[in-house]
Amino acid sequence: MRLIDKLINQIDNKYLPPQGTDLVVAVSGGVDSVALVHLLLRLANQYDWDLTVAHFDHQLRKTSQRDAEFVQKLAKNLGLDYVSAARKARYDFLQQVARRRRALIVTGHTADDQLETVVMNWLRGGGVRALAGMRDLDNNIWRPLLSITKTQIKEFVRQYQLTYREDETNQQTKFKRNLIRHKVMPTLRLVNPSLEQVLLRNAKVMASLADFVGQETARLYKKMAKSQKDAIWLDLKKLNQLPEFLRNEVILFTIRQLQGHQQDIKKIHLDEVQKIINSAEGKVWKQLPGKLFVSNRYGKIGFSRYRPKFLNR
Amino acid sequence: MRLIDKLINQIDNKYLPPQGTDLVVAVSGGVDSVALVHLLLRLANQYDWDLTVAHFDHQLRKTSQRDAEFVQKLAKNLGLDYVSAARKARYDFLQQVARRRRALIVTGHTADDQLETVVMNWLRGGGVRALAGMRDLDNNIWRPLLSITKTQIKEFVRQYQLTYREDETNQQTKFKRNLIRHKVMPTLRLVNPSLEQVLLRNAKVMASLADFVGQETARLYKKMAKSQKDAIWLDLKKLNQLPEFLRNEVILFTIRQLQGHQQDIKKIHLDEVQKIINSAEGKVWKQLPGKLFVSNRYGKIGFSRYRPKFLNR
Repeated sequence: MRLIDKLINQIDNKYLPPQGTDLVVAVSGGVDSVALVHLLLRLANQYDWDLTVAHFDHQLRKTSQRDAEFVQKLAKNLGLDYVSAARKARYDFLQQVARRRRALIVTGHTADDQLETVVMNWLRGGGVRALAGMRDLDNNIWRPLLSITKTQIKEFVRQYQLTYREDETNQQTKFKRNLIRHKVMPTLRLVNPSLEQVLLRNAKVMASLADFVGQETARLYKKMAKSQKDAIWLDLKKLNQLPEFLRNEVILFTIRQLQGHQQDIKKIHLDEVQKIINSAEGKVWKQLPGKLFVSNRYGKIGFSRYRPKFLNR
Repeated sequence: MRLIDKLINQIDNKYLPPQGTDLVVAVSGGVDSVALVHLLLRLANQYDWDLTVAHFDHQLRKTSQRDAEFVQKLAKNLGLDYVSAARKARYDFLQQVARRRRALIVTGHTADDQLETVVMNWLRGGGVRALAGMRDLDNNIWRPLLSITKTQIKEFVRQYQLTYREDETNQQTKFKRNLIRHKVMPTLRLVNPSLEQVLLRNAKVMASLADFVGQETARLYKKMAKSQKDAIWLDLKKLNQLPEFLRNEVILFTIRQLQGHQQDIKKIHLDEVQKIINSAEGKVWKQLPGKLFVSNRYGKIGFSRYRPKFLNR
């Protein structure tokens, strides 16, 4: 089988967006994203997807201007729409573009990126969700190359003589990701030469486990939560029956219900909530990041976005 | 606080065996197990435990005879019983001694060992149970030093001027464990200097998660299993509703129910069982390690220890 068909098959075997979907493709101009655009273009004809090339110019390197020009030209040559942004958080920009068009964002993350992400998350002490790594489809982000290796990408790009821009930061061990790529991975491979397979398989198990924990958390939350306008109350007795990690999951779920995200909530904050749980009723309250208040009242743990309402009950 | 009291506290804070328990202490003569014996002896008086020093002579090193003599003398000096074995699997020997006395086995595994175990299991692609590392109490094995670091142990041994035997294999990177100790850990520490805390915390989360999965598995098993004399049948429809990892957990649970252990059952065998699950009814059966037979009949998946009974139904 030709390499391109093999790669298309590998993409095809997993998630594919429905006919007529708008795709906003994140293109840096590097080898992965150039390959991504060409592979998607082939699929797009078949599935009637609408592709937009989106370039984020982080302006960190002298050559970033030339990267932008390269990507713009690439889009033009392929007859694709082009959008770009500078000095803005990359995902914020992509989400903005995607929201406007109700599109999927597509990124060129490969199996190699997945490996590094899993290793990095593990060394950061991430939980099950983090150990699951990136997902093929995660909300409105699609990663079709996630099971395709860098080697395959490079071979594909070589075969089709596609031009791309070298990512210059890549060669330095200046950043953590490069430290992992050039130092950690080779060392780990000394212990287990089939490291790739093992870690990617593990990520899949963790993904499955994370989904299961997610479902259980939602189920448990429903059993113990009472929500008011700006507050949610969890039954203390039911919460205390859970093992610590599930208790934390339910707490994070509650926080997400209340404010739509759990940004800035770290282990230390969960420990603070635990202290409130253990404290005598009504004696203690705490403020968490994101103007979130926690207190222990009437056999319930209350989470609230507004202090006055919450404390004057 | 004196170091010894600090260490005793650290042990005390977790699992402690009930009064009058018999303890079979695995002593190699190395620094960890020498410290272990001294710490246990102090606790033994208070809790009325009966200590036996057990030495396993692996006869791999020239000096192993002298190790054995050292440990025997240590036991004698402390007025403790001594048992030893040579050329036998270490845990088999300990279990044999422990079974005879209905005793707990005690090992000198430290926080450093735990770290290495977790890293090794991760690089081997172990599941949640493996990522949880060793437990403080695991069936009849107790590991009181599991949250105590090697540095603390060495300081304790120095302060009390306890003598011990150097483990000579330790300095070589010949074995995987040493490769991890001397190569992998220092590299990982480049990425995250507080690696120890992070990985040990992670192991705790995984332990909690593994317990939860274990409980869920037992609950699900009960809902779908019918057991006969030498066979257990699982309801295929219910089994298929589970995510893959839970299906595998239920299958492993079933195998443990049937033969008391899941030794030699690897991922590849679980994949074979999955093939049987996917196959047309009655057409296929497979033999798994441990003379275990699997087949697909009457909307159920059957596991049996004896082929004839199973296939002649």
